[in-house]
Amino acid sequence: MAVYGGIEAGGTKFLCMVAGGPQDIRAETRFPTTEPDATLARAIGFFHAWRQAARQPLAALGIGSFGPLDLNPASPTYGHITSTPKPGWAHVDIAGKLRAALQIPVTLDTDVNAAAVAEYRWGASQGLDSSIYFTIGTGIGAGVIIDGQPMHGLLHPEMGHIRIPHDRQADPFPGVCPFHGDCFEGLASGNALRLRWGQPAEQLPPGHPAWELEAGYIALALVNQVCSLSPKRIILGGGVMQQADLLPLVRQKTLRLLNNYVQSPTITAGIETYIVSPLLGNRSGVLGAIALAQSILDC
Amino acid sequence: MAVYGGIEAGGTKFLCMVAGGPQDIRAETRFPTTEPDATLARAIGFFHAWRQAARQPLAALGIGSFGPLDLNPASPTYGHITSTPKPGWAHVDIAGKLRAALQIPVTLDTDVNAAAVAEYRWGASQGLDSSIYFTIGTGIGAGVIIDGQPMHGLLHPEMGHIRIPHDRQADPFPGVCPFHGDCFEGLASGNALRLRWGQPAEQLPPGHPAWELEAGYIALALVNQVCSLSPKRIILGGGVMQQADLLPLVRQKTLRLLNNYVQSPTITAGIETYIVSPLLGNRSGVLGAIALAQSILDC
Repeated sequence: MAVYGGIEAGGTKFLCMVAGGPQDIRAETRFPTTEPDATLARAIGFFHAWRQAARQPLAALGIGSFGPLDLNPASPTYGHITSTPKPGWAHVDIAGKLRAALQIPVTLDTDVNAAAVAEYRWGASQGLDSSIYFTIGTGIGAGVIIDGQPMHGLLHPEMGHIRIPHDRQADPFPGVCPFHGDCFEGLASGNALRLRWGQPAEQLPPGHPAWELEAGYIALALVNQVCSLSPKRIILGGGVMQQADLLPLVRQKTLRLLNNYVQSPTITAGIETYIVSPLLGNRSGVLGAIALAQSILDC
Repeated sequence: MAVYGGIEAGGTKFLCMVAGGPQDIRAETRFPTTEPDATLARAIGFFHAWRQAARQPLAALGIGSFGPLDLNPASPTYGHITSTPKPGWAHVDIAGKLRAALQIPVTLDTDVNAAAVAEYRWGASQGLDSSIYFTIGTGIGAGVIIDGQPMHGLLHPEMGHIRIPHDRQADPFPGVCPFHGDCFEGLASGNALRLRWGQPAEQLPPGHPAWELEAGYIALALVNQVCSLSPKRIILGGGVMQQADLLPLVRQKTLRLLNNYVQSPTITAGIETYIVSPLLGNRSGVLGAIALAQSILDC
């Protein structure tokens, strides 16, 4: 059975995995994302070492990366990170560097599209041809499955950057997005929570007013997607969602904002199975990278 | 060559057409949307009369209807209008009534998905596998093409009902949506313009402050879709877009709001070909209904 390499290239950490699937994980490592050359060298070293020790090839490598990415195969900068504010990483040819070093087929998608693919293949949205996977962590992003495939369109979704209502009297915090100020990510990311409240999200206790406000912003973003992509399920992952009170609040506020306009029992009578946690936990992204690698050979 | 029936069932008027395609229009009529039985009887009468006069069958009927609609083929209320606030039309089995009366295959989609299909097949988004068609008229809606097909997901897009920032100091108008108040449609539809400014959109002169405000709301909605669906082109149709100053303002404000975050030359260097008017004008919807009817027989 073929074995694949997968990388979840996140803005704060890299996860690397060798696996045939979620039931066949051969090796795994994680390390912080520092500057590009050192970080990619560490990933390359992990896969080299595994091949040497196992005396076995990797059939392909999948990468789920933070972005924005150039995913247009016809573009001269295909496989590059583009305009990220992350120091040093703008315009890095992440797919090209890994292909050159490992000499195997490499495919790239966003970290969140990878997670959406993994949850569709093996997790919380299995069998549903349309779904959205949100990660609400340091930053905010989302991957989209339509007709069983990750959606790209012109580029790929950048759902952290949608604009949502922001009541500056109730919440005078100006937002942290360097491009847009108070977009969704600017208001509701882990970074925003840390700066608004002076402590990281994981230290804000249940019942803290942060969570009502946070749930309201997430619900606004979800309502906008129910009215735009009309997904069959929404998965909410990422560090901020670890606060157990948050998911029920988001469900409640989403229903209240929709106000019975979208009359589908899937939503109105089943909100607990409509807005859910990932089943693959914090491995959604790296397992999605494995699934992307598999899909190269399926083509 | 086969000839099809098409109906654009709009909230204010019905357009009925018999055609083989946009170059082969055999008959057309339009009349106001009144109560359901009388309106559908008038449409049925038009097609009956054409068949009798032409001594020719209609191969199929396509309907592009206002909504929300139940488009789930597995649902007992498939083909019905669902929760519309339009008096008398909630829960009308529009596809079933027309199928029973005309005894031909009938297919139904939203009026805006139909328009998106027509512009994809014959108009402004021809050859682009991903696009959005907005109608900004009495109400606001949008149809979406992904991989060359109208997108449905759980239901279908209801993009008029996304929430966007609303600065109540600059614009104290509370919005007109009976479900959501100041959602996009509540703030920016023709109805909203009429009530905010005390005169219909078509009577507001160029240079009136209404247009700057309107362009800002439309740009917010477009930015949200660039960050969500990432379409390859956005088409803006509907009565409100008839004001010639509006489209250039929308393009300008969309670029300003994106603030170079989404680095695609398609947008940054080509906004005039990225956000465009429909090529089929006010026939997009009914021609889309013809295209939907054709697609039944392609299956």
